[in-house]
Amino acid sequence: MKNKQFLLASRPFGTTTRENWDFVETDVAELTDNQVLVQVEYISLDPAMRGWMNEGKSYIEPVQIGAVMRAGTVGKVLKSTSSQFFEGDYVYGHCGVQKYAVVDTEGLHKVDPSLAPLERYLGVLGMPGMTAYFGLLNTGLPVAGETVVVSGAAGAVGSVVGQIAKIKGCRVVGIAGGSEKCAYLVNELGFDAAIDYKNENVKKALRVACPKGVDVYFDNVGGEILDDVLTQIRMKARIVICGAISQYNNTTAVKGPSNYLTLLVNRARMEGIVVFDNIANYSKAATEMAGWIAEGKLVAKEHVVKGIEHFPETLLMLFNGENMGKLVLKVDAD
Amino acid sequence: MKNKQFLLASRPFGTTTRENWDFVETDVAELTDNQVLVQVEYISLDPAMRGWMNEGKSYIEPVQIGAVMRAGTVGKVLKSTSSQFFEGDYVYGHCGVQKYAVVDTEGLHKVDPSLAPLERYLGVLGMPGMTAYFGLLNTGLPVAGETVVVSGAAGAVGSVVGQIAKIKGCRVVGIAGGSEKCAYLVNELGFDAAIDYKNENVKKALRVACPKGVDVYFDNVGGEILDDVLTQIRMKARIVICGAISQYNNTTAVKGPSNYLTLLVNRARMEGIVVFDNIANYSKAATEMAGWIAEGKLVAKEHVVKGIEHFPETLLMLFNGENMGKLVLKVDAD
Repeated sequence: MKNKQFLLASRPFGTTTRENWDFVETDVAELTDNQVLVQVEYISLDPAMRGWMNEGKSYIEPVQIGAVMRAGTVGKVLKSTSSQFFEGDYVYGHCGVQKYAVVDTEGLHKVDPSLAPLERYLGVLGMPGMTAYFGLLNTGLPVAGETVVVSGAAGAVGSVVGQIAKIKGCRVVGIAGGSEKCAYLVNELGFDAAIDYKNENVKKALRVACPKGVDVYFDNVGGEILDDVLTQIRMKARIVICGAISQYNNTTAVKGPSNYLTLLVNRARMEGIVVFDNIANYSKAATEMAGWIAEGKLVAKEHVVKGIEHFPETLLMLFNGENMGKLVLKVDAD
Repeated sequence: MKNKQFLLASRPFGTTTRENWDFVETDVAELTDNQVLVQVEYISLDPAMRGWMNEGKSYIEPVQIGAVMRAGTVGKVLKSTSSQFFEGDYVYGHCGVQKYAVVDTEGLHKVDPSLAPLERYLGVLGMPGMTAYFGLLNTGLPVAGETVVVSGAAGAVGSVVGQIAKIKGCRVVGIAGGSEKCAYLVNELGFDAAIDYKNENVKKALRVACPKGVDVYFDNVGGEILDDVLTQIRMKARIVICGAISQYNNTTAVKGPSNYLTLLVNRARMEGIVVFDNIANYSKAATEMAGWIAEGKLVAKEHVVKGIEHFPETLLMLFNGENMGKLVLKVDAD
């Protein structure tokens, strides 16, 4: 039984390249006490992975050179020395970019493939969904009737943020790249408006789409779009800093928001979030979101690429804006 | 009875120059109903005045070309058609950069020169004191034992922020320009440490002065110093955006904080404040601060320049960091 693994070979400078990875075949380790052998079926691709490849302090340790690349995964337990997980269980965990993982059970939790497709536990019912749910509700604090703007709106987090804001009675405007994504946001996800940042002047389009200004901005992208939204915020606006995908591959300094002094003029707030802080409440949120899906109020969409060998180029799809919905890699090619 | 007034002649590009002002001698208008004639004794000089000279939307209307420059003032009522203010009363208000003002009584309030020197009502007992008090306590939310950093620490707002943070039991570090100001902060105001941004590497000095990191940062300056502090914030830090004096004379875009993503890593918050929002609670705050002054816990310091004709160059002292404590202009030359 041979494993296939992507190891971090070197730290990228700017955009990741094939040379940053070693794709290796290795033996699967034997289990020690309280471990499981997981056959990874789906691997989550997240913008945050780019940050984990950098050296230096962040909210989580960087991936070490030579180590298996960190990734959220769902898979099936093949062997177990644990009293909590058994052969045949399906589990979510950070098993990494590999076909088989021998891991301690800490951080694993069971998922039920009869309730939702497995890959959904990496999307709406997983980390991106939790990020959207807690980031919007606990930090964005949307109130019915307010205007909520979200960037990266067709992505795994943004699409859920917008839909939850709609459920909460807000006017929702999504910013995404390309007419296909924008049509999807309005026609399939029920956003009130969408702005195509690749083909529109974002500041002008915001003025039209948000005539009363922006009460909540959920930012996944940073850069110019953050600066454009800052010009349109209302009094006491809340800006949720979830990510800055436009800046992650920078080879120069991150672009800071030049218009941050609108925070002062508008007594507004910009606040960072990390999803892990809400771990104690994940299951409550997942239950509520599963209910919304069942009622048809929340559309879950995954973008599945097949074959673990395609990991390097699939990761780049995130930064090139090529995915619609949650991007996942299916380990098997079929 | 002739008035002397500074009128805004043109909008500055970058630093204000003498050409942006008209210094004129005019007649004093007659009073209509519910007005007072105030003899202005002290004029407040505030960094915010630079913003009021620009065109465009802000938290307050810009000063119009040809109008008397807006300024906070204290002075004596010489005539009144009001039933609330009488000849001989001393009043605080926005009477502008002029010797005499005929104004409606809205926005005026009485001050008592027997309780504190008149100029103090423009400092600790006025807008800068209120800004420090409400900005630190309501938005910075300092907790005893936490580390509070303040920039512009020898200025009217910063010096009060630091002293209130000490009263609340925090470790307090001030950032100011020059060894004289830094010595003043530590030796006379009781700060735990001071960083001389003109002669020290601020980031390195912060690491030494704030070994546990920064819980609250009260920012009066923006620019590089804001970015340096962002590298040192702790989990759940609160950054109060009060001003950005380093950027007000920019002729290019404001420098946005490149390190704003530390907000994400640290689940931290950056929030803007405007003092006017607390107007209903000013007197409660002034009473508490007057108590602290009486107990010797709060040192009030004004930097008085004499002669209204020196207004243009006195305003520039703020931006050149030449004042220590609250900068005020005494209308009379003696």
